[in-house]
Amino acid sequence: MKEDIVKKSNLSSPSKKSQEGMTVKKEKDISEWYAEVVQKAELADYSPIKGFMIIRPNAYFIWEKIQENFNEYLKKKNIKNAYFPLLIPESFFRREAEHAKGFAPELAWIEKNSGEEGEKLAIRPTSETIIYDSFSKWIRSWRDLPLKINQWCNVLRWEVKQTKPFLRTREFLWQEGHCVYETEKECDAEVLEILGEYEKLCKELLAIPVLKGRKTKNEKFAGAYYTTTIEALMPDGKALQMGTSHNLGQGFAKAFNITFKDKNERIQTPWQSSWGISTRLIGAVILTHGDDRGLVLPPKVAPIQIAIVPILLGNKKKILKKAREIKKSLNEYSVELDEREEYTPGWKFAEYELKGVPLRIELGPKDLEKNQVVFVRRDDGSKEIVKIKDIRKKISDVFEKIHDSIYEKAKKFLYSSMIKTEKFADFAKAIEERKIALAPFCEGESCENSIKEKTLATSRLISNEKSRGKKCVNCGKSADFFVYFAKSY
Amino acid sequence: MKEDIVKKSNLSSPSKKSQEGMTVKKEKDISEWYAEVVQKAELADYSPIKGFMIIRPNAYFIWEKIQENFNEYLKKKNIKNAYFPLLIPESFFRREAEHAKGFAPELAWIEKNSGEEGEKLAIRPTSETIIYDSFSKWIRSWRDLPLKINQWCNVLRWEVKQTKPFLRTREFLWQEGHCVYETEKECDAEVLEILGEYEKLCKELLAIPVLKGRKTKNEKFAGAYYTTTIEALMPDGKALQMGTSHNLGQGFAKAFNITFKDKNERIQTPWQSSWGISTRLIGAVILTHGDDRGLVLPPKVAPIQIAIVPILLGNKKKILKKAREIKKSLNEYSVELDEREEYTPGWKFAEYELKGVPLRIELGPKDLEKNQVVFVRRDDGSKEIVKIKDIRKKISDVFEKIHDSIYEKAKKFLYSSMIKTEKFADFAKAIEERKIALAPFCEGESCENSIKEKTLATSRLISNEKSRGKKCVNCGKSADFFVYFAKSY
Repeated sequence: MKEDIVKKSNLSSPSKKSQEGMTVKKEKDISEWYAEVVQKAELADYSPIKGFMIIRPNAYFIWEKIQENFNEYLKKKNIKNAYFPLLIPESFFRREAEHAKGFAPELAWIEKNSGEEGEKLAIRPTSETIIYDSFSKWIRSWRDLPLKINQWCNVLRWEVKQTKPFLRTREFLWQEGHCVYETEKECDAEVLEILGEYEKLCKELLAIPVLKGRKTKNEKFAGAYYTTTIEALMPDGKALQMGTSHNLGQGFAKAFNITFKDKNERIQTPWQSSWGISTRLIGAVILTHGDDRGLVLPPKVAPIQIAIVPILLGNKKKILKKAREIKKSLNEYSVELDEREEYTPGWKFAEYELKGVPLRIELGPKDLEKNQVVFVRRDDGSKEIVKIKDIRKKISDVFEKIHDSIYEKAKKFLYSSMIKTEKFADFAKAIEERKIALAPFCEGESCENSIKEKTLATSRLISNEKSRGKKCVNCGKSADFFVYFAKSY
Repeated sequence: MKEDIVKKSNLSSPSKKSQEGMTVKKEKDISEWYAEVVQKAELADYSPIKGFMIIRPNAYFIWEKIQENFNEYLKKKNIKNAYFPLLIPESFFRREAEHAKGFAPELAWIEKNSGEEGEKLAIRPTSETIIYDSFSKWIRSWRDLPLKINQWCNVLRWEVKQTKPFLRTREFLWQEGHCVYETEKECDAEVLEILGEYEKLCKELLAIPVLKGRKTKNEKFAGAYYTTTIEALMPDGKALQMGTSHNLGQGFAKAFNITFKDKNERIQTPWQSSWGISTRLIGAVILTHGDDRGLVLPPKVAPIQIAIVPILLGNKKKILKKAREIKKSLNEYSVELDEREEYTPGWKFAEYELKGVPLRIELGPKDLEKNQVVFVRRDDGSKEIVKIKDIRKKISDVFEKIHDSIYEKAKKFLYSSMIKTEKFADFAKAIEERKIALAPFCEGESCENSIKEKTLATSRLISNEKSRGKKCVNCGKSADFFVYFAKSY
C-alpha cells in the first residue's frame, strides 16, 4: 500500500472503510479479482447458505436504476406490472413437457405443511406455468388481447454448477414479462422489440455492448418455440447471456387451455412471449468496466456520482466552505463531500476509486486561489482543471464522455475478440485463446454437443450472416448461418 | 341492472368488460362485498394454492405508489435498500428464543435438496435473523453506526386462520427496515419517527386515518422489546394493523453477537429496530373507501385518475376531437378517453365507478356548444359544470377535495366508533356492537387473554391517556393507561 493512502490517525479501526485496496490484478486472476471487488466495494456478501447472496446497497442501487429505466419502457408500452405467487403446484410443471424437463433438476420443493393440501409445491424458477393458469381464466375474446404483464420478483434455481455473486446464484431477482397475442406476426415483432430494448438498456444505462440474435435449438428456453438473446463478452473471453426474449409459440397456450374467440366468433389459440433480465447484469457491469483499482461505474448507475475531496491544507475553513458551496450547486447529482480529517486525500482517492465513483473533484488551497478545481475521471484517471463557475455545465459533458469511453472500450474488446473461420482447427484454437468463434454451423443438436465436448464452447447466438453453401465447421453438413460460439458463464 | 348500462351492440361478449356491476351491498355483507369488489375491479385473483393471491395490475399499481412514496422518505433519511436471501437456516431461528417460538408454527420448510447441506431451510416469514447474521459481520466500530437498511420483498407465513386477499395471505409483499444504533435513545426516537411516517403515508397517500401507539406485551412482535403500531378501523368495526415499528432492544444483538467498539475502545452491544408495512394496505384502501358501486380510490394511487366519457350524439367527430384535445392537455395525469361506440355512456359510467376512477369528465353536444364539460366525482357523485379552458387548473383542486373528503369521512367514522368506558358490561357491549372500546387496562397477559375469551377483542394499542388510579376494566387490578380494544382482522 502506498504511503499516502495509509490513514494517519490513531483512532480505532474504521471498519466501514478498512479495506486495504485491491490486491489482485484483473489480468492475473479475474475470478479472484472479481471476488475481491465484490467484497471490498461492498457489492455483495456471501450468505450462510451455499449459492445464495446478499445484495448490499451499493449493488442494489444499480438494480433500482435498471428497474427505473425498464419500468419507464413498460409504462410507455402499456405493459402492466403484477405479482404472482412464489409457490407453484407440481401439476402445473407437468403440463408442458419440455418446460417440465428443463426445470425439474433445479426445483426446490416445500415440505407438505399442515397436511392440508395434497399437492407438492415448488418455489418458482420462472413463472410461465402459474401465470398462464391465470391467463386461461382472464382471456375470452380478441378484445382481451394483447395481454401484457410483467412481474419483478425473486426466483430460485437450485444450481449445481459453481455459483458466483450476481453471475450465477440459486436465488436471483429479475423481471419476467409475459404477453399474449392473436397472431404469430405480432408476437414475433414484440419478441424482437423487447430484445432491442434490452440491448438499448445495456448500451445506454450500463455502457455494455452486446451481440443480438436467435439461440440454437440446444440453447433455447425450455418450452419455447424460439429464443432470442443478447450476449456480452466478459474480459476473460467468456460470453455472458444478458437477457432473453422468447417466442413461446402456442405450446403453453395449448397446455394451459388458453383460447380466445376471434372477431368471427371462432375459438383460436393465441401466441405467447416471455422475456427477462436479472441481477446478473450487475455482475456484467463489475466484470466489464472494473480495473486493478476496483469498480468502475457508468455515471447513470453510480450510487455516488461525484466525490468532492478537499485538500485540507492552509485555510481549511475557507476550503471547506467553498467545497460545501460546490456540493450544494450540484443537487441534481449524487455527491459525497468527504470532510473527514483523519484520512489523507490519497487514502480517500483510493477509497472512491475502489467504489467506482465516476468523477472526483479535488479542491486545494492553490485551486481555491485560482477559483478552480481538478476533475479526475475514474475510468482513465485523466485530470482536467475546471473553473469553479463552469463546474455545473461541465459535468453532464464529462459524464457523457465517461459513459461513451467505457462503452467504446468494451466494444473494441468485443469486436477484436471475434475470429471468423470455417476450419475446425482454427475454431478450436480461437476458443482455446478465449475468443468468440464465428463459424458456419449446421444447428444440429448432436453436433453442438460434440463441439461442447471437444472445446467446452456452446453456441451463443445465430448471426445474421448466411453461410451461402458453406459446410458446418464441425460435422461438414450443410449450414444455413454463421453462428457465434464461446465459453460462457 | 339499469337499462342505460346494458350494452347496446350485439358484438361478441367483451369479456374484459363483462362485469355486471356490484350485486352485494357493503352494509349488508361486507365480506361478500369485499370479495366481489376484489374480483370485479380486477384487484386480485385467487391462486390455485389456498391462501395465496395474484395481485393484478390495478392493485399492484397502488403498491408501486406506496413504494415510490416510502422510497422517497428512505432516501431522505439515508436508509439504503438491499436484498437478503429468501431462505433462512433453522439454527438462525433458534438463536432468539421468543422470536423462534412466535414464528415456528408459520414456517414453510424446504425439502433437503441434492443432499449436500445438512441444515433445514425455511422461507423467510420476516428477515431479522438472516439480516442480523450479516450485521454481526459488518459492524465493528461506532463509525459503522447507525446502520440503516431496508428491503422490499415477499415473505411467507403459513397462516391457519381464514385468509382474505391483501388482508391476510400466506405470501405477501412488504418492506422491512432494520436499523442498528449506539444508544437506546436514538433507537426510541427513530422507532417513533418511522411510525409517524407510516401514519403520514396512510393519511396523505391513502386517505386513511389511524390510531398510533404502543402494543401491549401480548400483542408485541416476537422478540421485540416493545412494538408500536398504527391501527385503522374498517367499516365492519374490525381494527386493522396497518404497520408496526419495533424497538428490538438488545436481544437480537446478543443472540447474533452484534457488538461495536465505542469511542473509548470499549465493546458495547447496540440497540436495534425493525419496522414494516405491507400489501395489506391495499386491502385497507378497498374496505375503507369503497361503496355499493365498487371501488373508490384516492386520486394519488388511482391507475386511471380521470375517465373522459364523450356523449357521442350529434356531431360525433367534433365531440371526439375536443375530447382528445382535453386528454392531451392533461398529460400530467393518467387519463382514459373512452371512445368506444359499442357501449352506452351509462354502461361506461358504471364501469369507471366500479374501478374507483376518482373523476369522470362528460362531454356531450350541448356541453360542446357551451364550451364546457361536466365533472363527476366518484366519491360523492357530485357534479360540476366546468368551462373547458378551466379544466386543467380545476383538477388539482378537485383531487384535493376528494382526498380530504374521503379522509374526513373515514376519520368521522373512526372517532364516532369509540366508546370510552370503565365498566366491563359497557366494554363488552361496545365490542359486541362493533365499536372500539377504550378502557383502563392492567396490561396483564392473562387478563388480556381472558378479555379475548369473553369478547373476541384484542388490545389494539395503549393510548396516551393515563388512567389516574382507575382499575382495569376486566380484572380490577391497577391500570396505568387507557387501552384500545377491538376485534381485528
